[in-house]
Amino acid sequence: MISEAATGYLAGPVLVIGTGLLGASAALGLRRHGLDVGLRDASPTAQRVAVDLGAGHVVAAGEGFLPELVIVATPPDVVAPVVSAALREFPDAVVIDIASVKGSVLAALRADEMLDAAALARYVGAHPMAGRERSGPVAARGELFTAAPWVVVPHEGSSAHAVKVTKAAGADLGASVTQMDAAAHDQAVALISHFPQVASSLLASRLLNAPAEALALAGNGLRDTTRIAASDPGLWIQILSHNAGQLLPILQGLRGDLDRLITTLQDPQAPGATLDLAQLMSEGNQGQSRIPGKHGAPPQSFATVGVIVDDRPGQIARLLADIGEAGINLEDLRMEHSAGYEVGLIEVQVLPGRRDELVAALTALDWKVVQ
Amino acid sequence: MISEAATGYLAGPVLVIGTGLLGASAALGLRRHGLDVGLRDASPTAQRVAVDLGAGHVVAAGEGFLPELVIVATPPDVVAPVVSAALREFPDAVVIDIASVKGSVLAALRADEMLDAAALARYVGAHPMAGRERSGPVAARGELFTAAPWVVVPHEGSSAHAVKVTKAAGADLGASVTQMDAAAHDQAVALISHFPQVASSLLASRLLNAPAEALALAGNGLRDTTRIAASDPGLWIQILSHNAGQLLPILQGLRGDLDRLITTLQDPQAPGATLDLAQLMSEGNQGQSRIPGKHGAPPQSFATVGVIVDDRPGQIARLLADIGEAGINLEDLRMEHSAGYEVGLIEVQVLPGRRDELVAALTALDWKVVQ
Repeated sequence: MISEAATGYLAGPVLVIGTGLLGASAALGLRRHGLDVGLRDASPTAQRVAVDLGAGHVVAAGEGFLPELVIVATPPDVVAPVVSAALREFPDAVVIDIASVKGSVLAALRADEMLDAAALARYVGAHPMAGRERSGPVAARGELFTAAPWVVVPHEGSSAHAVKVTKAAGADLGASVTQMDAAAHDQAVALISHFPQVASSLLASRLLNAPAEALALAGNGLRDTTRIAASDPGLWIQILSHNAGQLLPILQGLRGDLDRLITTLQDPQAPGATLDLAQLMSEGNQGQSRIPGKHGAPPQSFATVGVIVDDRPGQIARLLADIGEAGINLEDLRMEHSAGYEVGLIEVQVLPGRRDELVAALTALDWKVVQ
Repeated sequence: MISEAATGYLAGPVLVIGTGLLGASAALGLRRHGLDVGLRDASPTAQRVAVDLGAGHVVAAGEGFLPELVIVATPPDVVAPVVSAALREFPDAVVIDIASVKGSVLAALRADEMLDAAALARYVGAHPMAGRERSGPVAARGELFTAAPWVVVPHEGSSAHAVKVTKAAGADLGASVTQMDAAAHDQAVALISHFPQVASSLLASRLLNAPAEALALAGNGLRDTTRIAASDPGLWIQILSHNAGQLLPILQGLRGDLDRLITTLQDPQAPGATLDLAQLMSEGNQGQSRIPGKHGAPPQSFATVGVIVDDRPGQIARLLADIGEAGINLEDLRMEHSAGYEVGLIEVQVLPGRRDELVAALTALDWKVVQ
């Protein structure tokens, strides 16, 4: 699996504790820089699969392995005790965890009587914002963190060296390194990750008893809003428990808005009802428009061109080849789903300045372009 | 714009009243079958744009135009009076409306003292489940309804002839024709269309005051769940008002679930809290899994293969060309967004039986395949 040996920022060795999807992926990614990577997992099976994948070698306790960095990638509910044990077992190592919630881990470590300030100085939190629908080491890949945010979360006592090593790990994994404190991080992920997950799950759970003939009419709106409702319950139960304090005010805000909407819809002809609905929709418009686009581009900064294609092998390839030959970069692409039909609409997004050129090029090639 | 003259099911002529996005698109689509299409809009500008697009010719009152079918495509809040007037102006025509909510239109027509049973027999509701983010006739296209559901909604007094003509219009527009009664239709769209819209708007409106550094961490989860929050407020205010009765019980169900979740998160270590969270997530999983896939395929029936690509013109085209040359049909495609990076992950979906073949073919061509 070591296909590209390139010099990275870390010197190594690195110990990864917890060889599930994220741990094994981090190990694979670091191995590509030629680093010596040790592995350890409470599950002999998960550990064995990670070794078989080429993620590293097993490191037992007391065998003299001296890591520069220990990455704790266990399930969230055991992160704090595992970090604490690692800080004590490896008194010269920087120890990071990559759990999705940082405040609860930090609080537990600060309350840990077995850790002194010197030990705590070697701890830094990290949050790689990457994942897959599937879990376990079998789904691991060295590129998992490529281009994903790697949030470095130091505490007041973290040493400069520990912060540097934590950033180096993110850089070696090809991630986009940023820094926040634990409170800001947990508030941010509550809003942009945990809240959408909860909303999607709540929405999808209303479909449990829906008639099949209703679901047959489902379009991209329902599909998009419920896609993440398919996420792994086990992991999310822990995340939601650990970040309950940050998630609660957001859910209470939602409840307030929902209560108002229910009251409005109970008498939609009442004075002010239309204004209430307008406000809901308009605030949704504005909130949505604040989400940055791909490559950190300002929201909605790409132009969309629709093209009708036959649903046959090679059609979309031919379209994209034509776009590529026109020298225009594709920023995003979307296929419209449809039930029972063999034609579809492809929406391609390009920089606005290239839009007319693209329409002209495709039209000249007899594509059915929809402007 | 009449590029393909083909014999359709309707004989014509057809009058389209309301030449916005949907009306003008229907007119364009029917013109392709060589039908004589008349147009009428309260806005002289919208009417003029539709004529300029080649959607048809203006039909003034009293000029002897004798349509087989009148399609009322006005905003929802004036549909009923416009349908009523059309039934009286054209005593031999079938009159349909294509608004998103059917029960309120039907109730208004039944209460209309100017209509007798014979006139009402010529009315049938229809709901083409297609749309675009943009509105107005400029965005119109004849293919808008292609492969989209066209729900025919007769009432008890609709004549067999009127139902047949309504279905013929959907068939001529290339849509997938189905039939439901008004109550079943309105319940279905409340659940699969209006509810996701409200949920997405409520979710996005919580982003209004979010720190930019939090939004910079946004991933596909937030993007997907909030995409439809960008929808046109004007139209949705009318839809939500008109279908309030069907939407309310769903929102009350959501409020019940949300209340329970808030209570649970107020003490996530309490006995039973974990089980509550597990139930939320699991019901979300189950609800999501009930949504049918593309082409009406059973949910989750496609296999996903990930491929790492450079973000340069032609890369994705080359990938899809390779997939096409392997003779494998692409069922869906997804680009992972990322901030500040020039590489990305393309997830392609294929029939599960073709998955291994695809992985082998792409690996042989040196693509970085992620399984």
